[in-house]
Amino acid sequence: MKTFGISLLAAAFFLGSGMLLAQAPQDKYELKEPNGISFAEIRGYETWQAVAPSMRTDKNEIRIILGNDTLVNAYKDGVPENNRPFPDGSILVKIGYSQRKSAEFPAAIEPDVFQRVEFMVKDAKRFKGTNGWGYARFVYDVKTKTFSPYGKDAAFDQECNACHTVVKSRDFVFTRYSQR
Amino acid sequence: MKTFGISLLAAAFFLGSGMLLAQAPQDKYELKEPNGISFAEIRGYETWQAVAPSMRTDKNEIRIILGNDTLVNAYKDGVPENNRPFPDGSILVKIGYSQRKSAEFPAAIEPDVFQRVEFMVKDAKRFKGTNGWGYARFVYDVKTKTFSPYGKDAAFDQECNACHTVVKSRDFVFTRYSQR
Repeated sequence: MKTFGISLLAAAFFLGSGMLLAQAPQDKYELKEPNGISFAEIRGYETWQAVAPSMRTDKNEIRIILGNDTLVNAYKDGVPENNRPFPDGSILVKIGYSQRKSAEFPAAIEPDVFQRVEFMVKDAKRFKGTNGWGYARFVYDVKTKTFSPYGKDAAFDQECNACHTVVKSRDFVFTRYSQR
Repeated sequence: MKTFGISLLAAAFFLGSGMLLAQAPQDKYELKEPNGISFAEIRGYETWQAVAPSMRTDKNEIRIILGNDTLVNAYKDGVPENNRPFPDGSILVKIGYSQRKSAEFPAAIEPDVFQRVEFMVKDAKRFKGTNGWGYARFVYDVKTKTFSPYGKDAAFDQECNACHTVVKSRDFVFTRYSQR
């Protein structure tokens, strides 16, 4: 009985070690950009509503753009064409993929490799330095199946802000809500 | 008192006529394809989960593809790569737009004019004649803000079925669920 007990303990120990050695999957929501924005601020975005598709002609990239309810409801109320700003808490998420021809239907372009998740979250007070929007981007590595923050320092988001200033009249949001 | 009553009746009559003359917005969910599939079979699709973006190089077209929970859950369970079929009730909705360069950021392509909503709904028994999937397409006219069924006769869906037979090994579904 005693021997059995020790064996069980030993088995439990080896099992435990094995579980430590086999790398645990990354908890992406623990990641933060150097400007303090956490991936967890969009927890659950995977099932958020679609806002629009888009692509880039200067990059090998197709995207799907999602939004939380605050953002989508603002669009439906006429923001930003009605010259009102998006309310605090609005979040727009852009998910980027490299693109490829469909193997089965080559005239169609479809997502190939998942590349990143980026988002902008509205909080007029918190993000005063970037016109009321906080920017974050998490880059996905398909080999290691892990994300990493894009920013090298806390000022990285000025790059986002500078580009989005082109659409200052649309409360800094390029994307339109696609009718459906 | 009597005059007032008649005036009120007359006013109500004119108001009623006016409302009849000013066209009521279309109830798209009353529409049916000639194969019997109703637009109402996807009631509420506007907020369904995004499955993937796509575009066509042979047409001026960018799309967003949505799915109901049955479909998305099947994808997450590994369908169709696991060689199991999508369960009855799975619905995939494709929303098509002409495309344009973003006015503010010309390297980006975005949806321009909303063109149509099309969908495929799985019911192995009901749609035996088209490999278990029912196909429907409702074409949107941006001038009249109305949809109309695409099919000219009940056999129109054989066109859909013929094309989707290319992906018979994927239970007739071209679209992959985009990682995010």
